[in-house]
Amino acid sequence: MGKTLSVNSGSSSLKWQLFQMPEETVIAKGIFERIGQEQSTMKVEFAGEKHSNEQKIIDVQQCVLLLLDTLIHYGLINDFREITGVGHRVVAGGELFKASVIVDEKVLGEIKELARLAPLHNLANPAGIEAFMKLLPQALPVAVFDTAFHSTMSEKAFLYPIPKKYYDEYSIRKYGAHGTSHYYVSQLAAEMLNRPIDELKLVSAHIGNGASITAIDGGTSVDTSMGLTPLAGVMMGTRSGDIDPSVIQYLIENVAHLNNAAAVLDELNNKSGILGISGLTSDMRDLNDARASGDKNAQLAYDMFIDRLKKYIAQYIGLLNGIDALIFTAGIGENDEAVRQDIIEGLSWFGMEISPELNIRGANGIISTAQSKVKVLVIPTNEELVIAREVETFRQLWFNQTFSKGIA
Amino acid sequence: MGKTLSVNSGSSSLKWQLFQMPEETVIAKGIFERIGQEQSTMKVEFAGEKHSNEQKIIDVQQCVLLLLDTLIHYGLINDFREITGVGHRVVAGGELFKASVIVDEKVLGEIKELARLAPLHNLANPAGIEAFMKLLPQALPVAVFDTAFHSTMSEKAFLYPIPKKYYDEYSIRKYGAHGTSHYYVSQLAAEMLNRPIDELKLVSAHIGNGASITAIDGGTSVDTSMGLTPLAGVMMGTRSGDIDPSVIQYLIENVAHLNNAAAVLDELNNKSGILGISGLTSDMRDLNDARASGDKNAQLAYDMFIDRLKKYIAQYIGLLNGIDALIFTAGIGENDEAVRQDIIEGLSWFGMEISPELNIRGANGIISTAQSKVKVLVIPTNEELVIAREVETFRQLWFNQTFSKGIA
Repeated sequence: MGKTLSVNSGSSSLKWQLFQMPEETVIAKGIFERIGQEQSTMKVEFAGEKHSNEQKIIDVQQCVLLLLDTLIHYGLINDFREITGVGHRVVAGGELFKASVIVDEKVLGEIKELARLAPLHNLANPAGIEAFMKLLPQALPVAVFDTAFHSTMSEKAFLYPIPKKYYDEYSIRKYGAHGTSHYYVSQLAAEMLNRPIDELKLVSAHIGNGASITAIDGGTSVDTSMGLTPLAGVMMGTRSGDIDPSVIQYLIENVAHLNNAAAVLDELNNKSGILGISGLTSDMRDLNDARASGDKNAQLAYDMFIDRLKKYIAQYIGLLNGIDALIFTAGIGENDEAVRQDIIEGLSWFGMEISPELNIRGANGIISTAQSKVKVLVIPTNEELVIAREVETFRQLWFNQTFSKGIA
Repeated sequence: MGKTLSVNSGSSSLKWQLFQMPEETVIAKGIFERIGQEQSTMKVEFAGEKHSNEQKIIDVQQCVLLLLDTLIHYGLINDFREITGVGHRVVAGGELFKASVIVDEKVLGEIKELARLAPLHNLANPAGIEAFMKLLPQALPVAVFDTAFHSTMSEKAFLYPIPKKYYDEYSIRKYGAHGTSHYYVSQLAAEMLNRPIDELKLVSAHIGNGASITAIDGGTSVDTSMGLTPLAGVMMGTRSGDIDPSVIQYLIENVAHLNNAAAVLDELNNKSGILGISGLTSDMRDLNDARASGDKNAQLAYDMFIDRLKKYIAQYIGLLNGIDALIFTAGIGENDEAVRQDIIEGLSWFGMEISPELNIRGANGIISTAQSKVKVLVIPTNEELVIAREVETFRQLWFNQTFSKGIA
């Protein structure tokens, strides 16, 4: 019994949700954006109320103070000590963290060390953890890793076909991402299909501004499209996904302002994907508007996006040698019914048939026809809930251990 | 009527075949290897005879002289003028060459300019062409481009999801390779299946030391696994194929002896793939021996190789939204029945069933069972013949034009 915060600290934003556990009810949620910039914004939502506020927020520590003040101010908590646990989303767990973990100084140092695999996110992650540990010292801090679900990948799936010493000496391998989301929707899919997950072959398509596809066999991740970093795989809002590695050398050697690897990788991470091809936007809603008004490059970006998703889904059907269900989740996967329709219609040979009546905005559950050989589902993801559950599990464990020690 | 040479000049080798055209009979064939090194070798084969010779060969011009001497010496030709055409395999045709072309000074310059897309091969290609033009001035020189067959790819297939200006200004795009081979086997597959090619969905797997997979719809290439350069796509003998682009930055920034893009790309081209993972060999036959003797890394390399092939084949089945036939060709594709079996058995869900009786060494034709929904074929590739045919087509055209001019 207690209140648990689920926290996702990004490079300039902090998203949070406060849960009443173990009931799993959301007490409140909110987001801080443009942290460190002139006009930061703070949004909070609870019991149907929405508030937003603009002011300069200098760093994540000030965020946490503001958050706690806000919770008190609106009577959502009466005392900081009601918050008994804080769960943090951490992007890269490397090979060290194959499951969630209680954070101490040692773990914090290790998370910082892993920052080299996803520099943008990972430096923000430990900063957020530190701020909460300092200001809520009584709350159990738990790190939940976005890579943990993919730690079941076999060597043949996670290794790159490069000299093996670079894995042995530098840990260069595929780690994947969005693991918490792929885990959550695959578990829920099995429930919705009313079948044991250990006999299901699933492909989950987490399609948001970042996107990854995962092949899930019997409930475990066997391959996923993101790699050493979240740059790899399908085309994304601003990320290229997979390209011929030679392109990087070619850009470095031929384009004046891209004369080093960091500059090229910045281009591939932040100016490519839908933004790079459309020349307009990284946002699917804006892209759809531009397509509707006849913009050729917007249409091209959309067509490339769809084809690359189809190819990744199909390759995982190949790897699994079959598929029982395809799952759509995350911003675009949950909310863009046209993207879902174009993918499914393009894979009709595989025995997927979409139901126009079920494939609507706000769909939650099966969207394929009754006779569709392969089931297709939309499942809104809920990484925050998984994180809160992980915290709760550790709290119970910790409580039981402490209690049994007291008895002995 | 005449004799046509088909030539493939590599960086340190030159392969040739002499055809009697239009009969398409092979008069002789041979290979020069380790050109420019201390112990070069020359092998020649004709009418059941095989000869080989070791001596220092300094450059491609000396190769051509030795080749012509050899043909005279064995009585295969009586006069150089019997050779009426020379067709050259050229790796990169860029966007300039969408079909074969008669080579003149301008074309030669353009081929050299395109060398930047495939440095190793392309500089060797024009050197070979120049040597033959100089020593056989009466023979029609024709360049046949390995990329030409893929020039039918649509923009959405050949563009990378990077800012479009890099295509507009620097021609960075997917060009593909092994086009002559994919073209040849797809045409022959339609004949063997006794169906018009324009109604077939085919995936052709050219698997040799270099390997590429192509999606062919109605006889035209719609997508292929190699990219701007032959590094991209599946895992190969010494090449990585696709990897997370971030790996390159990571290697440059963390590995002392790989502190620039050229060094990393050299590693990915020449020390990766099967060689990189096995730590032993890039050759599939040696790898199979090592696997048989229980070598773990050899087995790992094999498993990675098979999975990556399966994934590429499946993704093209996805892109085509179906498949009528899968074609295996080139060194491994033609000669390694275990590779074929492991791929097909791993894709049984797609309706492919291999016949153990038909899937034997030396197979030529259908190797799937009668009830297999998807046909699987082995077709020995013959790029040399396609090149000789291209030369013959140009010779006829040239002859007719000259003749009609003479009449007018």
